[in-house]
Amino acid sequence: MAIETSASVSDENSSHLQKASVQDAGPAPLDASKLKITLTQSPKALVPPEQLRFGHTFSDHMIFAAYDPVTGWSAPEIKPYAPLTLDPSSSCFQYCTNVFEGLKAYVGPDGTPRLFRPELNMRRLERSVARFALPPFDGDEVLKLIKRFVQIDARWIPAVPGHGLYLRPTVIGTRTAINLTASESAILFVIASPTGPYFPQGLRPISLLAVSDCVRAWPGGTGSDKVGGNYAPIILPQQLAAKQGYDQMLWLFGEDNRVTEAGIMNFFVVVTREDGDGLDVITAPLDGTILPGVTRASCLSLASSPAFQKEQSLRLHTHERVFTMADLVQWSAQGRLVEALSVGTAAIIASVSKIGWKGKDITLPAYEAGLGPVGMALREKVVAIQEGREEWEGWGVACD
Amino acid sequence: MAIETSASVSDENSSHLQKASVQDAGPAPLDASKLKITLTQSPKALVPPEQLRFGHTFSDHMIFAAYDPVTGWSAPEIKPYAPLTLDPSSSCFQYCTNVFEGLKAYVGPDGTPRLFRPELNMRRLERSVARFALPPFDGDEVLKLIKRFVQIDARWIPAVPGHGLYLRPTVIGTRTAINLTASESAILFVIASPTGPYFPQGLRPISLLAVSDCVRAWPGGTGSDKVGGNYAPIILPQQLAAKQGYDQMLWLFGEDNRVTEAGIMNFFVVVTREDGDGLDVITAPLDGTILPGVTRASCLSLASSPAFQKEQSLRLHTHERVFTMADLVQWSAQGRLVEALSVGTAAIIASVSKIGWKGKDITLPAYEAGLGPVGMALREKVVAIQEGREEWEGWGVACD
Repeated sequence: MAIETSASVSDENSSHLQKASVQDAGPAPLDASKLKITLTQSPKALVPPEQLRFGHTFSDHMIFAAYDPVTGWSAPEIKPYAPLTLDPSSSCFQYCTNVFEGLKAYVGPDGTPRLFRPELNMRRLERSVARFALPPFDGDEVLKLIKRFVQIDARWIPAVPGHGLYLRPTVIGTRTAINLTASESAILFVIASPTGPYFPQGLRPISLLAVSDCVRAWPGGTGSDKVGGNYAPIILPQQLAAKQGYDQMLWLFGEDNRVTEAGIMNFFVVVTREDGDGLDVITAPLDGTILPGVTRASCLSLASSPAFQKEQSLRLHTHERVFTMADLVQWSAQGRLVEALSVGTAAIIASVSKIGWKGKDITLPAYEAGLGPVGMALREKVVAIQEGREEWEGWGVACD
Repeated sequence: MAIETSASVSDENSSHLQKASVQDAGPAPLDASKLKITLTQSPKALVPPEQLRFGHTFSDHMIFAAYDPVTGWSAPEIKPYAPLTLDPSSSCFQYCTNVFEGLKAYVGPDGTPRLFRPELNMRRLERSVARFALPPFDGDEVLKLIKRFVQIDARWIPAVPGHGLYLRPTVIGTRTAINLTASESAILFVIASPTGPYFPQGLRPISLLAVSDCVRAWPGGTGSDKVGGNYAPIILPQQLAAKQGYDQMLWLFGEDNRVTEAGIMNFFVVVTREDGDGLDVITAPLDGTILPGVTRASCLSLASSPAFQKEQSLRLHTHERVFTMADLVQWSAQGRLVEALSVGTAAIIASVSKIGWKGKDITLPAYEAGLGPVGMALREKVVAIQEGREEWEGWGVACD
């Protein structure tokens, strides 16, 4: 049975009136307090956690709101997962005015669904939307909608460590004319996919192929924004890497072959310091060619935290700096390359076994647990925070 | 009244049977001979040519075919223009696995609709599809469908010089899972928009703003393919140019500020030679940062043709070579900069009045007709070929 209800309550009426008068001056802003909820009449059967493949299953509902240049954002809805119907001239098909985010809801021993630093995703979404001149909104309103959505579809969060409900906020331009200009109409939607480990092999390390003739991003482009058009171009290079027996690409930039990202994840190396004072944890700087990942920022923050280092008995020095393939070759030859890590929301933290480069492999140390000392410490800490087993600087945000 | 008919005729049955046996070995190829035509029950009212804005009006019908990884390409359809219904997880929204083409149908004094060098668009479409690992097809089959489509919607071609029916073949990925990999399903569609001059001011020259901090394309990227994701990133820079009073961007590349493209068009300069032997016609080389435009190729071909030069009383030397903002500044200072031209399917050939660079303007000579000697000769020749008033190397392809 469909249940239609409004999330508005009577004591919010006065603020609605205030907003109505603001609307007279322009298009309505996105307003989570206007949420309309329509529950599905036919809930789907859950997929057993061990059968989940990343991104193949979707939950019962979705968030939906549409922007019209005159009236502004529609009252947001949570409604049954459903197709979109769009004119073939729509900007999203023609000019790819499409941006997205990825974040996960986790459930831990206390049964409360939690998001991991979702405000970082909302800020990045706002930036991506601005980069493509799409209709703006306050990401905090989206976050309110997501929290409610996660509550409604909480049964879809697999209660298995390392599993979560992957949330995909998406904004697409829906202007129906093919002269190139900003899409003054748009749709915001959020879908949710229950997921186990991104790589089916779990913590088995991945292999990377470094190439210099395909370039993911460049200064003055969109490499630091989470826009859909950054992804289609990397499918073919990824296929070529797979044909050579590697799991993912290692993206390079510039004549000096700077290391930038790995596949669709940020990339770290852990290097023994020459002065004997522990380990350097190094990742590329945010120079416009790097996506400012939430997991990247969290790894940098944890690794530079004295409390984390003390707890894990690690001595770490973090660096956001340019490093090149020549550096990797040298560190490997010197026996100083302790770990290489791919980090991102989907796979969290994955270890790298080898990096193909100019017909040879840079081989990383193998660890029985699948991750080395730094990767394992970071991963376990991040997962503990995600699942609410540990509190850390407010990173775990309960959906309540 | 809806008319459903099949373009197949009985004497094609034997080749159909042959193809059926080929299909047993794999997914069906795109096959124009399987075309199904459904005419609209409610033809739209034509828009008077003088009221047409580029890309805002669409004709009565569209071409549609879908690819399924098991069965292959569906029998293509020409059917009433209609929205697409797609799952929100579709690759086209999420990862922008979308490519397109632009070509025009023209009608001249003989009343026959003609396409301009459409085989070049079909080859480029095939390359774009391969670049994004989308399901392949034979572009010649698409061209057969387009010819039939143009016949059916011929009343939408404005019979006014400089007007045409802009055709937009589009291929979008329709895979419904959000792990990043090739979209093994897709939709091919073609829509048509009757159009007058791209720039509402007609032949009035356009102004360009050259900037070095926004970069359209990069070697190893997708700048030489006609993929949707190349376009969304240039909307915001274009808005910033407009705020400074310029019509379009002039895109640069590299530390030496090489001139690459203008807005969404290829770019030429015409320079008086120092040896007195006529004019140099210069455009950037196809180094991966330049779209290999059909109008670009046609201008190069015409300008290097002795027959064209003789007919137009012009002495021209064509060059595909790197040139920089410093070159433009120098040629301008020397009084040698005769013309700058933006060329592309939508606007054909447009003249440039000035180029903003580092707070100053490079001013181009003004011509009463709106185009200088080379731009006008090229434009008039191209339009004459497009409208079938002149025959040139088979460039005008009749839709019959």
